[in-house]
Amino acid sequence: MAVFEYQRRVRYADTDQFQAAHHSRALLWFEEARTELLRALGRPYQEFERAGFFFPVREASCRYRSLARFDMLLAVAIDSVEVRGASLRFDYRVTCGREAIVEGYTVHACVDRAGKVVRLPADLREIFARA
Amino acid sequence: MAVFEYQRRVRYADTDQFQAAHHSRALLWFEEARTELLRALGRPYQEFERAGFFFPVREASCRYRSLARFDMLLAVAIDSVEVRGASLRFDYRVTCGREAIVEGYTVHACVDRAGKVVRLPADLREIFARA
Amino acid sequence: MAVFEYQRRVRYADTDQFQAAHHSRALLWFEEARTELLRALGRPYQEFERAGFFFPVREASCRYRSLARFDMLLAVAIDSVEVRGASLRFDYRVTCGREAIVEGYTVHACVDRAGKVVRLPADLREIFARA
Amino acid sequence: MAVFEYQRRVRYADTDQFQAAHHSRALLWFEEARTELLRALGRPYQEFERAGFFFPVREASCRYRSLARFDMLLAVAIDSVEVRGASLRFDYRVTCGREAIVEGYTVHACVDRAGKVVRLPADLREIFARA
Repeated sequence: MAVFEYQRRVRYADTDQFQAAHHSRALLWFEEARTELLRALGRPYQEFERAGFFFPVREASCRYRSLARFDMLLAVAIDSVEVRGASLRFDYRVTCGREAIVEGYTVHACVDRAGKVVRLPADLREIFARA
Repeated sequence: MAVFEYQRRVRYADTDQFQAAHHSRALLWFEEARTELLRALGRPYQEFERAGFFFPVREASCRYRSLARFDMLLAVAIDSVEVRGASLRFDYRVTCGREAIVEGYTVHACVDRAGKVVRLPADLREIFARA
Repeated sequence: MAVFEYQRRVRYADTDQFQAAHHSRALLWFEEARTELLRALGRPYQEFERAGFFFPVREASCRYRSLARFDMLLAVAIDSVEVRGASLRFDYRVTCGREAIVEGYTVHACVDRAGKVVRLPADLREIFARA
Repeated sequence: MAVFEYQRRVRYADTDQFQAAHHSRALLWFEEARTELLRALGRPYQEFERAGFFFPVREASCRYRSLARFDMLLAVAIDSVEVRGASLRFDYRVTCGREAIVEGYTVHACVDRAGKVVRLPADLREIFARA
């Protein structure tokens, strides 16, 4: 069971001349799902940036299963969130109905404004522990 | 005669399912040409941002003449730069060989870090006067 | 009163280092609003493409009023649709609450698969006449 | 020693509000490098599409080493190309001077116009064997 699910249309500007969403868009769908997960958990992402915590991507990986066509309504599921000392890992699964579109994960460092790696803020740990 | 010319390939990720560059990309080509013009004039854009001057777009306008296909080598000409008290206007013409692709202009305010409109820095006036 | 209104968050990938949405994104918001208008009118855009009608942008114009910050919930209003013989014009107004963000318009040709300008399909005329 | 190297500036529209290129852009840099490799080998990519061969991405993976700032001149090296029966793998390393920016790989299927997996065209095998 997914931790969270976010729905998102494939937009015209997402497509390329192969008549489907460009593969780089999967990383945007993952990012939008993370943003909406935090909002759903009551702690919008920008609160962390305002408090001086940033979460740059250290690793990103995708396996593409089938093409995402224009106007498809995608379900972007976050299947798990792994909270480590100073980093986070999210696993994603994008589907359209029963059709697998793309799976992947991202790993994020937690850094301060100067780019120094710091421990995850306690409240972020807590909300993900509850999720 | 153009003030400056910048060459740029149409990339795969620029295309959409209509088999040509998405119309929004023209604004990116214009921006890249502005960046390269400033470099050619010896004052890279980031020097202005470091000095506290920013140039947000206030108006942008495009007339599309023909489609820009994948891998076309575009010439993005800056035809004129109009320097005003606290703003700038650039006129662009994008061609591929003799074929007109898109024409347009952008108007930029000059603002400080707080977003307040300020007079253009003197050295920016000078380099455009020479151009 | 707007013909139609579409709501859209400013996404992280929409922002640039000036800490607001890149100006080119306005054209994507306009496009998404057009897509949703057609869906709301019962004739999704891809039905026209399948029937051999395409609507490339011939003109696009934007006036930026204030910056769209990350995570703002934008209302993209289509204020009017002007149906001509072989082209269409849409007028847009993007706001966030009472704050004006950007206004603009796009003009679209109606072409067939070969790129030849053709008259607008009759059903498109009808649905816009009703709107 | 890299098979090929492609140089590419970080553009303003590549940046996000974290003041560096958005992580999704690495996939665009990889793609541009593949396009330029094929051109350098004398067989531009569109010739394959015209002949009915397409190379959709099946896997993509990135490890981000340091941030790519606006206007950095990146060297996108293709370190190896692995030619399989009906797929291809490219390994990439992006640097700016001595600084590692991002490493990654992509795996591509070879499909025909209908999306059916087919053997790589013989001339593509040959040019990569020589490279």
